[in-house]
Amino acid sequence: MSVTDEILIANEAYARNHELKHLSPRPRKKVVIITCMDTRLSIRTMGLDVGDAHILRNAGGIVTDDVIRSLLISHYQLGTEEFVVINHTDCGMLTFTDEEFRAKLERTSGTASVSPTHFHAFKDVEKNVRDQLQKLRSHPWVDKEISLRGFVYDVKTGRLKEILG
Amino acid sequence: MSVTDEILIANEAYARNHELKHLSPRPRKKVVIITCMDTRLSIRTMGLDVGDAHILRNAGGIVTDDVIRSLLISHYQLGTEEFVVINHTDCGMLTFTDEEFRAKLERTSGTASVSPTHFHAFKDVEKNVRDQLQKLRSHPWVDKEISLRGFVYDVKTGRLKEILG
Repeated sequence: MSVTDEILIANEAYARNHELKHLSPRPRKKVVIITCMDTRLSIRTMGLDVGDAHILRNAGGIVTDDVIRSLLISHYQLGTEEFVVINHTDCGMLTFTDEEFRAKLERTSGTASVSPTHFHAFKDVEKNVRDQLQKLRSHPWVDKEISLRGFVYDVKTGRLKEILG
Repeated sequence: MSVTDEILIANEAYARNHELKHLSPRPRKKVVIITCMDTRLSIRTMGLDVGDAHILRNAGGIVTDDVIRSLLISHYQLGTEEFVVINHTDCGMLTFTDEEFRAKLERTSGTASVSPTHFHAFKDVEKNVRDQLQKLRSHPWVDKEISLRGFVYDVKTGRLKEILG
């Protein structure tokens, strides 16, 4: 059986009680977490629960155009006031370069030159967090009243370390 | 105190035990969930736990260039084999149009014509899921062996409904 089919069976069981039924679409704590898709990350490590925050996740926890899009909608349509960028140690994005990865895709697929054009691999996680904060700070559509802070989560210790932009 | 400061205090408490310490960076169930940033969504409703899956989230659960980027990294660098797209009822993306939202940003900021150029608002959530599946299916870099399935999560009942592409 596929994992997708297992998910459907588990969802049938979940829906018998649906304990998350009474949540509001507006995040209770008015905060957005921008972080990596990595399987080891959880809002549990931040004392957050379902209903508290908007969560944006992609490979690396990068402030891409898509993240800016989502943040603008979060703030202007759903009232969030704090943006928190979290990258983490031992990230997969530290293990390759954009050039290597693109070459691998082109070789495997037999197709060159399609988008995405950037993969956002990086070599220094603290610098990477500072770069993401800078993108937020300099974007003309990001409200200057919003709190913008950045962290590295250490997967070994479970601790967040603040990175000053 | 800001929510960000509350998160730091909660994280200090979490790190004393760090129960997620022994997870692998490779998702145990080799699955990626592509879904919305909405605060009411949780992997709990699918019987998944931390460590099982890569999670990609943006406004709407849209297959953008950034999501394709992340999926390629997930599959080729970290071994995932199933992609699951989940949109949901009562989504904020059903409540505005791209044109209205852009006009609001331009008016509020006094700055026109910057990126992002699309906001991906939609009017029909089932059609939106089919469109996202189609983007995955037609992308030359997405391995044809990967399982691609799409669902709408009903926030009232907690149930996933499969949308056939």
